[in-house]
Amino acid sequence: MPLLTDAGFPDLSRLVSPRSVAILGASERAGSVGRDTLVNLAEHSAFEGAIFPVNPGRETVLGLRAYPAIAALPGPVDVAVLCLPAAAVIPALHECAAAGTRFAVVFTSGFAETGAEGRAAEAEMAAIARRSGMRIYGPNSPGLSNINRRLGLTFSPVFKDDRLGGGIGLVTQGGGLGRAFIQASERGIGTGLWCSTGNEADLTMADFVHHMVNDPDIAVIALLAEGFRDGPRFLAAARAAARAGKPVVALKVGKSDYGVAATRSHTAALAGSAAVTSALFRQHGIVEVDDLDELIDTAALFARAGLAPRRGICVYSFSGGTAALAADMLGSAGLRLADLAPGTRAGLGALAPSYAAISNPVDLTTEVFSSDTLNRDCLSLVARDPGTDVIVLPVPADYGPITDRLARDIAALAPDSPALMLPVWMSGHRARGHALLNEAGLAPFRSLGKALTALSRLIWRGNWRPGAETAPPALPGLPDGDLDEATAKAVLARLGLAVPEGRVVEDPGAAQEAARAIGFPVVLKALVPGLLHKTEAGAVAVGLADADALEAAWQRMDAALAARGHALLRALVERMETGPGVEVMAGLHHDPVFGPVVSFGLGGVMVEALGDVTHRAAPFGRDEARAMIDEIRGRALLGPLRGQPGADLDALADLLVTLAALGARGDIAEMDLNPVRAGPGGARVLDAVILRAATDSQGKERP
Amino acid sequence: MPLLTDAGFPDLSRLVSPRSVAILGASERAGSVGRDTLVNLAEHSAFEGAIFPVNPGRETVLGLRAYPAIAALPGPVDVAVLCLPAAAVIPALHECAAAGTRFAVVFTSGFAETGAEGRAAEAEMAAIARRSGMRIYGPNSPGLSNINRRLGLTFSPVFKDDRLGGGIGLVTQGGGLGRAFIQASERGIGTGLWCSTGNEADLTMADFVHHMVNDPDIAVIALLAEGFRDGPRFLAAARAAARAGKPVVALKVGKSDYGVAATRSHTAALAGSAAVTSALFRQHGIVEVDDLDELIDTAALFARAGLAPRRGICVYSFSGGTAALAADMLGSAGLRLADLAPGTRAGLGALAPSYAAISNPVDLTTEVFSSDTLNRDCLSLVARDPGTDVIVLPVPADYGPITDRLARDIAALAPDSPALMLPVWMSGHRARGHALLNEAGLAPFRSLGKALTALSRLIWRGNWRPGAETAPPALPGLPDGDLDEATAKAVLARLGLAVPEGRVVEDPGAAQEAARAIGFPVVLKALVPGLLHKTEAGAVAVGLADADALEAAWQRMDAALAARGHALLRALVERMETGPGVEVMAGLHHDPVFGPVVSFGLGGVMVEALGDVTHRAAPFGRDEARAMIDEIRGRALLGPLRGQPGADLDALADLLVTLAALGARGDIAEMDLNPVRAGPGGARVLDAVILRAATDSQGKERP
Repeated sequence: MPLLTDAGFPDLSRLVSPRSVAILGASERAGSVGRDTLVNLAEHSAFEGAIFPVNPGRETVLGLRAYPAIAALPGPVDVAVLCLPAAAVIPALHECAAAGTRFAVVFTSGFAETGAEGRAAEAEMAAIARRSGMRIYGPNSPGLSNINRRLGLTFSPVFKDDRLGGGIGLVTQGGGLGRAFIQASERGIGTGLWCSTGNEADLTMADFVHHMVNDPDIAVIALLAEGFRDGPRFLAAARAAARAGKPVVALKVGKSDYGVAATRSHTAALAGSAAVTSALFRQHGIVEVDDLDELIDTAALFARAGLAPRRGICVYSFSGGTAALAADMLGSAGLRLADLAPGTRAGLGALAPSYAAISNPVDLTTEVFSSDTLNRDCLSLVARDPGTDVIVLPVPADYGPITDRLARDIAALAPDSPALMLPVWMSGHRARGHALLNEAGLAPFRSLGKALTALSRLIWRGNWRPGAETAPPALPGLPDGDLDEATAKAVLARLGLAVPEGRVVEDPGAAQEAARAIGFPVVLKALVPGLLHKTEAGAVAVGLADADALEAAWQRMDAALAARGHALLRALVERMETGPGVEVMAGLHHDPVFGPVVSFGLGGVMVEALGDVTHRAAPFGRDEARAMIDEIRGRALLGPLRGQPGADLDALADLLVTLAALGARGDIAEMDLNPVRAGPGGARVLDAVILRAATDSQGKERP
Repeated sequence: MPLLTDAGFPDLSRLVSPRSVAILGASERAGSVGRDTLVNLAEHSAFEGAIFPVNPGRETVLGLRAYPAIAALPGPVDVAVLCLPAAAVIPALHECAAAGTRFAVVFTSGFAETGAEGRAAEAEMAAIARRSGMRIYGPNSPGLSNINRRLGLTFSPVFKDDRLGGGIGLVTQGGGLGRAFIQASERGIGTGLWCSTGNEADLTMADFVHHMVNDPDIAVIALLAEGFRDGPRFLAAARAAARAGKPVVALKVGKSDYGVAATRSHTAALAGSAAVTSALFRQHGIVEVDDLDELIDTAALFARAGLAPRRGICVYSFSGGTAALAADMLGSAGLRLADLAPGTRAGLGALAPSYAAISNPVDLTTEVFSSDTLNRDCLSLVARDPGTDVIVLPVPADYGPITDRLARDIAALAPDSPALMLPVWMSGHRARGHALLNEAGLAPFRSLGKALTALSRLIWRGNWRPGAETAPPALPGLPDGDLDEATAKAVLARLGLAVPEGRVVEDPGAAQEAARAIGFPVVLKALVPGLLHKTEAGAVAVGLADADALEAAWQRMDAALAARGHALLRALVERMETGPGVEVMAGLHHDPVFGPVVSFGLGGVMVEALGDVTHRAAPFGRDEARAMIDEIRGRALLGPLRGQPGADLDALADLLVTLAALGARGDIAEMDLNPVRAGPGGARVLDAVILRAATDSQGKERP
């Protein structure tokens, strides 16, 4: 199955950099959206194109010639901005489309987030876009700010302060959090382009991510997502970003039930499963963060540091306790202190007092307070240490002129430093030193933990590589209709997966014969159409050691099934699998947001009790399958452990790749292989449920 | 065993509030410790007691009459502050002690943190204190700031700015991080008393925690610990704090190897095991935090909010996306959104626009921008909602005068609000609104995540109760000498714990006889003195179904042991335990910092693979044992699960309480019960290693 290509994405350059803009509902009324929008464009933007206020009741608006309708304009415009009440939006969109408008921006709220009527209106918007080719941005959008070009298509009362552009492209759905991001300009963090897609009746976040991938002024894409309208297209945009080497940093709302409910009422977007979303982000190299400040700090770090691989870190401070805390937290975060080279240590030793710590973490002590040059000279040495890629510079407290000088040293050395400098300003006291670091574009972190979290993410993304695409295995077709366990296992065997040796039998005598052929001990499983929860129903007997035990189990099972209104007419006799191995589970389902998703985790009772499961979007190759196996918490159980050989991870990976290929093919709705016995000799599927896509669409109850 | 009482703690009131202070090494030399210390006391403190500069070379220092030696003073002083080089410290301490000084403060560094000579000097300091009764603070201490009394015994150049006292007592070991804490005064967070114990040659953090428990001006104790000199005394101080209802918030360095190493070189303190420390903190109601900003914010929150139990939380914002993110993160943090009462909802509905969200999370929308009263009136309603204990108020961005008004509303309503108000200022832009909240003592959090983390800790501590002390079980004495597995199990059986039925045998014939008496299948375990890793050595055979299997196992085992130079002279024949149950482990060891500690977790291979273990300081009662069982990640495996009855948790708790009583008694060095089979019928110890305390002290290798 071919991956989605870039071909499906629209060219948005005339939306973010229009030559002409019509403002429908332009007004002079103080506090009105129509006025604020016009003022933002005409007065606070550096917009050199044509502005067409549209207002049937006025000759001019704020000194600009007004037009009674968009049809009355001299020609089609690139962008029409609708500052209109909800009831007027659909008619206006029809008029805009008829007038040949390229893009319509709809601020108005009160659509899908309010109920069925609003959803119908948005469907109409999508239809207008589809029929006319005019693309729609919104509704329920706070607008668009192209700060690098100094252009605001927004009614925000604070747009006039948005003056610091930069390499960060910001994609959001709502306004308030995006505004908080933009205000990081106070810390010297500049955002070049902010697009906020609102309810996404037509254009979605995926379109803007893709636009930014191709925008040479954007180095990092920051995404604040409440939900995805079209998961697979978003993943395609993420793949384009990965190919372009442009990091995507994302904060996704909807990790808890409260968030899912609140998101639905806010932008009417599907939140999806948080665990699936996070795993798919990892699969696509998207750097997921957990809070808004982390989104800002991490995006700013990538904008400054890029994707160079980094490994060795030096902690550098003038406070021993601070150095110890930083080193400690660094170790807890799984990061690595660099071994300073002998030359670096010798240089530090020659400069620093005898009681300073000149191995890593470096603690120059308060001796830096009384020397004008000690800090500069030592930091300069560490910056050129061959094993040091990053210097973490925690400043615990503000000591006035002393700290100012330390900040000046950092600001002076950072531009030419081979090692990335990460200052951390830990004090609530923020005087000149803090401002100096901001002005130098070093935006100090506000806590050690946040700095190390961002650094971990920088290092993770620097090392991330997309899994190699491998040709999907050639898979035979599936039989029609329902699949009982025996049929499901036969299908799996045809797909090349290992299942226990077994036979279908219809009476106790045939069961005995089968068991003798297979060899005791055996397992007996009733094959009863529509029977769920087989173990609880008494329809499974394991460890049957001889013919008597098998006979007794058949009779017990028959009685247990009869008590539930079923009959034991067919059963599966299987070899009892023993020997070393760990029970794992592998599954396939169709995620409502992202489509086919494969899951893997500890199996049997553990999947419920520990919830140790990970996911990937299908299809994928062996690299990705191995990454899945490696990222579950219980990975160590797969060995090698205590001198015992580990499970055959290649066989397990092949099983996952096969599931992924099946998922991408689309004829299976759901598949649950649980348990799979993963041992040194391979991965054997002990129980299997396969629901055909057709079966699924009939809404049958799932086991 | 009686718990430590308060009797062991010194009265420190004349150290933190002295009537007279001598400054040894007082000086006029600019930048000297002797000058800065004298200036801080004489000029920047509001100290009304006597100040005695001691300097043999001067008549006066900074206008104060100087004395040639402490012996020349008119009488004993409460505190002598030593501003002296390392070599002069010990002689000066002898002189101070001889002069009847109550407390000596030693700033000087270069002692235990530098090596053996320094450690010897500190041992001498401890001896001086012990012999004379003069208590010593330091060495390697940055001093002491009693900000509530405006008294500084410190050389810090920024002490003069420490003007905001308050209900927080801060205990640290080093200076830089403590200074960062103090500078939270910029955010309106006041620290009343800061003690920084340095290397703790004599007085330790435990003494100052205990002092603050009895200081009526201190409401919350914030602790920044690099290591504990005397863990059990610290726990006694923590118990005193718990009895007094005074929360202790702690940041402990030493969670990773890097931190342990850095701490050792900084204050020469023992870091101890981070997992044990964290578990013992929980046991004692100590609120552990992970970063310095969390220590500050959490202590400030407790100072403001106290220990009232809180449960229902309302998220209140004017930004839908922000409200959704906050609700989402709140759910992920395991917190609970309050159901607003019908009256509250009706009131909000009457005030807010139709498109506002008036259930929880509340989103008043940007309508609050254009109304002067909407926010105030709605917030006032929510503050009085009967189910709402806490209101989280995220302010995503600064909108100038609009946000100022919102901040004023919060500041005006907070003092009389039945619900605790927690503003969160998410923007990097901090104008008047931010300052207003700080001035009102509401110190807004800087990120949603940090706010919710602090709130979770507030709620946890509000609900925490010390485990009821139960009478320890009466336990028989232990046999002398080494305990092999059979003896160990016999001891456990005498202690009332369940072990498999078994017999010790000395030849295959006796083994057969024992097995027939016990009933097949059986387990055969060689009893070989000094043999470690029995399974790997072939010294264990399980599931022996009949006499032939037992005979064959004996021969195999004999050969395997012979190959390792051992002989099979004694063995244990045991009933093979089957049936439902989960393998857990229970252990006892002597922690180098905290003394006897009991551990519990998933057993067998899981303890290694998942590391799912928790700990408690011994002794403890059943409540604490049940809390241990409930806090492991794999708790769900103990059931009930999938309709099966769960393990007998009371039996498991009794086993842990027994271990705890043994640990407190002190005659066992180490005990490892792994696995213990926890099933519906009880907790049965399947393997046991017991090392006597005497054995342990011989340094024998442990299995």
